Amino acid sequence: MKHTRITLAHGNGGRLMRELIRDIFLDSFGDNDLSDAAELQLDSSLIKITTDGYTVDPLFFPGGDIGKLSICGTINDLVVSGAIPKYFTVNFFIEEGFEISQLQQIVHSMKNVAENNNISIVAGDTKVLPRGSVNGIYIATTGIGTTAASHLLLEQVKAGDRIYTTGTLGDHGAAVLLARNAFGLSGPIESCCASVLSIGSQLMQQRLIKFMRDPTRGGAATVCHELIEMTKLGIKLYGNRLPIRTDVQSFCDILGLDPLYLASEGRIMFVAAKEWNPAAISNDIIEIGIVEDDHNNLLLETNIGGRRVIPELESDPLPRIC
Amino acid sequence: MKHTRITLAHGNGGRLMRELIRDIFLDSFGDNDLSDAAELQLDSSLIKITTDGYTVDPLFFPGGDIGKLSICGTINDLVVSGAIPKYFTVNFFIEEGFEISQLQQIVHSMKNVAENNNISIVAGDTKVLPRGSVNGIYIATTGIGTTAASHLLLEQVKAGDRIYTTGTLGDHGAAVLLARNAFGLSGPIESCCASVLSIGSQLMQQRLIKFMRDPTRGGAATVCHELIEMTKLGIKLYGNRLPIRTDVQSFCDILGLDPLYLASEGRIMFVAAKEWNPAAISNDIIEIGIVEDDHNNLLLETNIGGRRVIPELESDPLPRIC
Repeated sequence: MKHTRITLAHGNGGRLMRELIRDIFLDSFGDNDLSDAAELQLDSSLIKITTDGYTVDPLFFPGGDIGKLSICGTINDLVVSGAIPKYFTVNFFIEEGFEISQLQQIVHSMKNVAENNNISIVAGDTKVLPRGSVNGIYIATTGIGTTAASHLLLEQVKAGDRIYTTGTLGDHGAAVLLARNAFGLSGPIESCCASVLSIGSQLMQQRLIKFMRDPTRGGAATVCHELIEMTKLGIKLYGNRLPIRTDVQSFCDILGLDPLYLASEGRIMFVAAKEWNPAAISNDIIEIGIVEDDHNNLLLETNIGGRRVIPELESDPLPRIC
Repeated sequence: MKHTRITLAHGNGGRLMRELIRDIFLDSFGDNDLSDAAELQLDSSLIKITTDGYTVDPLFFPGGDIGKLSICGTINDLVVSGAIPKYFTVNFFIEEGFEISQLQQIVHSMKNVAENNNISIVAGDTKVLPRGSVNGIYIATTGIGTTAASHLLLEQVKAGDRIYTTGTLGDHGAAVLLARNAFGLSGPIESCCASVLSIGSQLMQQRLIKFMRDPTRGGAATVCHELIEMTKLGIKLYGNRLPIRTDVQSFCDILGLDPLYLASEGRIMFVAAKEWNPAAISNDIIEIGIVEDDHNNLLLETNIGGRRVIPELESDPLPRIC
């Protein structure tokens, strides 16, 4: 690459664009032709497909970057729907003037996560937009997976079922906000941004698990509200069991935020029948709540035994964290 | 929808976002749950997949809008690779303040094209970005098709093969430029933006056709240069046979543009063996050139019998037309 920054000509379909594709994208993603569509021979004709757009400010944060996020997020969406991720496509919207070395770093992160999770990136596209019409880079990722767990059935969720999480909540949201130096604060919180394929593959084998979701945009509270909306049941979370890291909680206390609304990017929240034993999988799984009959409400049981309604997120003061 | 404009809260995963999805997207695209991934039972496990990002300025132009473009473009990419488009995913990046009525119009265009081409839009995502960090709306579309023509083989392209187009060239690029009121010009040129599925399905059945491409970004010249790069052969275009509409040519003459670099969005360029008879398909198919041995060059045979080299597009004065 002769250039150090992306120019509009890198997106016009001509020579510079072909160089960009060859030197940056094919070098990492390893396709060998430039045709308009990739041919795939799937193991099965029953697949799952998902798509997500990724924008994060800043693009690089402790524990990850937009590239890692854009692959992990789509992996995780497939896993929580009971599929093993296989083939991905990626779209880049890049601002004119973007540093090519940063693009290389982002693409490298994508390549690493894809390789570690046995995913092939089979097609891609890049659009370069005039300076000021993209904030750096946006990525849209579509993922295809083969269906592994068709027993995940929302209809089986009932009162008495337990709510679990595979790890701490809100780390990603707090890490990204801190990385912005927002409100004059800074600190060492690292994003939980990661693939949940490994733990998720184990959870898929458990026939007493009925529903999985990754608590990204809108956090754990939003997952609960979606579940409530779909089942017309209620949920009670136990305030004294919520796995919120001390530094994440302190950060939230200072800013008056509720960590239940902050995104995680490497966690699964799930619902299992009450007789399911989490120790069969991992000691890191934490029971955080219970499905209740007939409430249509998300309640938080506070440490002193009171109950507080956690409303649905309406207006978010924290845009662009995932 | 109570709002008339998109707000950041429409993208935060909460209540307003669910309303947006329900009232705008599901109403048109007709999914019935909000899960993270859609399950598909394919006819075959051999598929083709493609992805493309769409940005166009202006968003609405004579003959189409960004919504129509974002579905037609991905249909056409699948068709020219020999596949029948089936399942699409769509990603929206929307600027805060965008008019919801415009979004409805765009989504409606997408729905119409999808329905007319028997395509299901099976998954989608929306990100809302702060004012000034998107120019209105960007769309990324991924398409899955079932492989219909595996005989399209680039390796069989050889000297003496003919180059064809299914219609006039450069209409889309000229229409979009005119719609910008660029350079103080205005006029009635309509974009060729359309699905090529119907004619493409017929071309796929023709065993003497070896290669198809849609001349979008970078135009017909760029398709030729890609073919040259891949085959190491040369191409000669006949200047007196190029189907350029008079108004498109006049527009180009005024601005000093070459219509060979202007995008078409509803045309197929293809290579067929010299014994192939285009009249078998349609009288609208136009022979515009010939593959030549050993040139590695794109030549234009001018009306008076001279030859002019058409160089590869390097720096494009016309960004964001497709």
